[in-house]
Amino acid sequence: MPLEDLVTGRGATEVAVDDDIPEQVRQTLADYLRIRVRECGDLDPAVAGAAEELVDFVLRGGKRIRPTFAWWGWRAGGGSALGPEATAMLRAASSLELIQAGALMHDDLIDGSATRRGSPTVHVRFSEFHREHGYAGEPRDFGLAAAVLLGDLALSWADDMLRSAGLASGALARALGPWQAMRTEVLAGQYLDMLGQARADETPEAALRIDELKAASYTVQRPLEFGAETAGADRATLGVLRRFGADIGVAFQLRDDLLGVFGDPEVTGKPAGDDLREGKRTLLVAEGMLRAKQQSDETALELLETSLGEAELTREGVQRVRDALDRLGAVEAVEKRIGTLTESALSALHEAELPEPAARALERLTVTVTDRDA
Amino acid sequence: MPLEDLVTGRGATEVAVDDDIPEQVRQTLADYLRIRVRECGDLDPAVAGAAEELVDFVLRGGKRIRPTFAWWGWRAGGGSALGPEATAMLRAASSLELIQAGALMHDDLIDGSATRRGSPTVHVRFSEFHREHGYAGEPRDFGLAAAVLLGDLALSWADDMLRSAGLASGALARALGPWQAMRTEVLAGQYLDMLGQARADETPEAALRIDELKAASYTVQRPLEFGAETAGADRATLGVLRRFGADIGVAFQLRDDLLGVFGDPEVTGKPAGDDLREGKRTLLVAEGMLRAKQQSDETALELLETSLGEAELTREGVQRVRDALDRLGAVEAVEKRIGTLTESALSALHEAELPEPAARALERLTVTVTDRDA
Repeated sequence: MPLEDLVTGRGATEVAVDDDIPEQVRQTLADYLRIRVRECGDLDPAVAGAAEELVDFVLRGGKRIRPTFAWWGWRAGGGSALGPEATAMLRAASSLELIQAGALMHDDLIDGSATRRGSPTVHVRFSEFHREHGYAGEPRDFGLAAAVLLGDLALSWADDMLRSAGLASGALARALGPWQAMRTEVLAGQYLDMLGQARADETPEAALRIDELKAASYTVQRPLEFGAETAGADRATLGVLRRFGADIGVAFQLRDDLLGVFGDPEVTGKPAGDDLREGKRTLLVAEGMLRAKQQSDETALELLETSLGEAELTREGVQRVRDALDRLGAVEAVEKRIGTLTESALSALHEAELPEPAARALERLTVTVTDRDA
Repeated sequence: MPLEDLVTGRGATEVAVDDDIPEQVRQTLADYLRIRVRECGDLDPAVAGAAEELVDFVLRGGKRIRPTFAWWGWRAGGGSALGPEATAMLRAASSLELIQAGALMHDDLIDGSATRRGSPTVHVRFSEFHREHGYAGEPRDFGLAAAVLLGDLALSWADDMLRSAGLASGALARALGPWQAMRTEVLAGQYLDMLGQARADETPEAALRIDELKAASYTVQRPLEFGAETAGADRATLGVLRRFGADIGVAFQLRDDLLGVFGDPEVTGKPAGDDLREGKRTLLVAEGMLRAKQQSDETALELLETSLGEAELTREGVQRVRDALDRLGAVEAVEKRIGTLTESALSALHEAELPEPAARALERLTVTVTDRDA
């Protein structure tokens, strides 16, 4: 489909986005990225080859959680389910996946992660590519460079995709507030995260602040607001979605933290306990440390301190940390907080009178992103 | 000044941008960034501290070459010198400096450069900061993470600044074509650059292709087009500016390559010969290698091959490479090409009937960016 058709919506088949957002998002991204890769091919075949890596990364995975919240923000704010406006909004929402792709590529590089979505991370893939071809220089440096540039490309294309989504100019202008805030906040959260690790800041407060910026704001609250603003939602609806999003966003991150330590690799796409090896200062770990200190449990404290950030941590080592976090009551504390946040989010939702099917969908999503068996 | 005033142009003093573009750009960036840093402070003081590093970087330096070309593209296309539209265009043009800041931070990280604009590069600064504070982990990893994130922030803010520049929606829509192309092309050029280094591709053709993407397109051609499109220039003017920009852009890069080897550190802000230590595969070096092979000058070929990318290359080593490049005729070949490109650019300019003062200004700029004594 030529770019103009994509922009104007000509030729687009009408689909009920409500019923299968992740697949609609995937298809929308595939259509958009095909055009961009072709443009890269016009510059140089090698550039198209690198861009294909970005496409693989974007299409391979993800639960499309940010576009999903953006879509339901749009619907909750009164946006239509069908027609050219809905098609434009679907494209705008899908562009959030490109921000996420860029953020993940850069995050994986920063964290030195080897695996993402069940495959080698971008910097590792390009290092391997370098090694296989017997190129000059260090494979590691080549991987770093490629991950930086490909992440930059993803971030640039995210903007481009939003701009060419076909939103009316008023809608686009309203969408920019949350869009801009979201991008600055996720970078702020990442910076505080690395600073906290460097400063060995173990307090639950520091962990929560990062969760608010990196997860709550970026993953749930701002995407919801982005969709709702685009639809022209009234102040009351925006207020409800903000409160709901703040709670659900943190709850989602806390669930993710638990999965990072206790999760099944088949489901998470990462080796069990990788969050521990990477030394992530999550609320779960912070609660564990705090409790170990309060209970003067030197053995547990030492175990946590030596295991965290230990790249060679064994399967048995992971199991020992799990047992300690459980015994110390850190798991229970985090589960309890997830419960409280979820209740608070649901009651905000129930008090509001959001239109259907958005209200029901948001309630279902609440369970999906915070439930232990999800 | 509140953001709304910046956006609408209320409260802005009318200034003749034509007369001192670099200073106007600096002031515009300072005003915009002050607001963004304040927003970061609302998130966390440490985030504001990191953002201040970005501000220092942006305000400290640069010849504002991309905004300057964008401005004269605007004026050549019939854009006004004064009034709210000119103020909006000045902001839009200034946003190019934020793309450049992000690109430089990431480039310096990739190249492992220690110095930029006469100061330590961002990754080096943050490594030192980490070391001084005795933080946990590796200073180098901290520097890497900070440079990635701060570069991302610069790229995000570039977009934000363009969007809030106050351009009319039609003007903004026209500006997006060159804006998007520019960003993809500079990343494509950087990727081809690193790939060429890895593949040890020594051909002058490969060096020229990278110059076209990284320099001609990104530094001159697209900024000119960006300004002209924003002004609503006619097809003929756009055609002239494109031809002019392609020639001048490559000539500028070739001059920069010569300065990277022969330049005065006082002027370039980088240690003499740093381009050699970083192993940059410039046309200058490619011409040197080609000539050494053609002349079966094994000594010169070996000197070039061992010096290129040698991080510990001494002052004397740099001088030996200079002598060799000179003797082989590589310097003369590059000077000659600069001359041809400059003539071709000027004749495109003279054939066109661009309005004054744009025509004269572009002629002056041609000299500034390509002249050996500039």
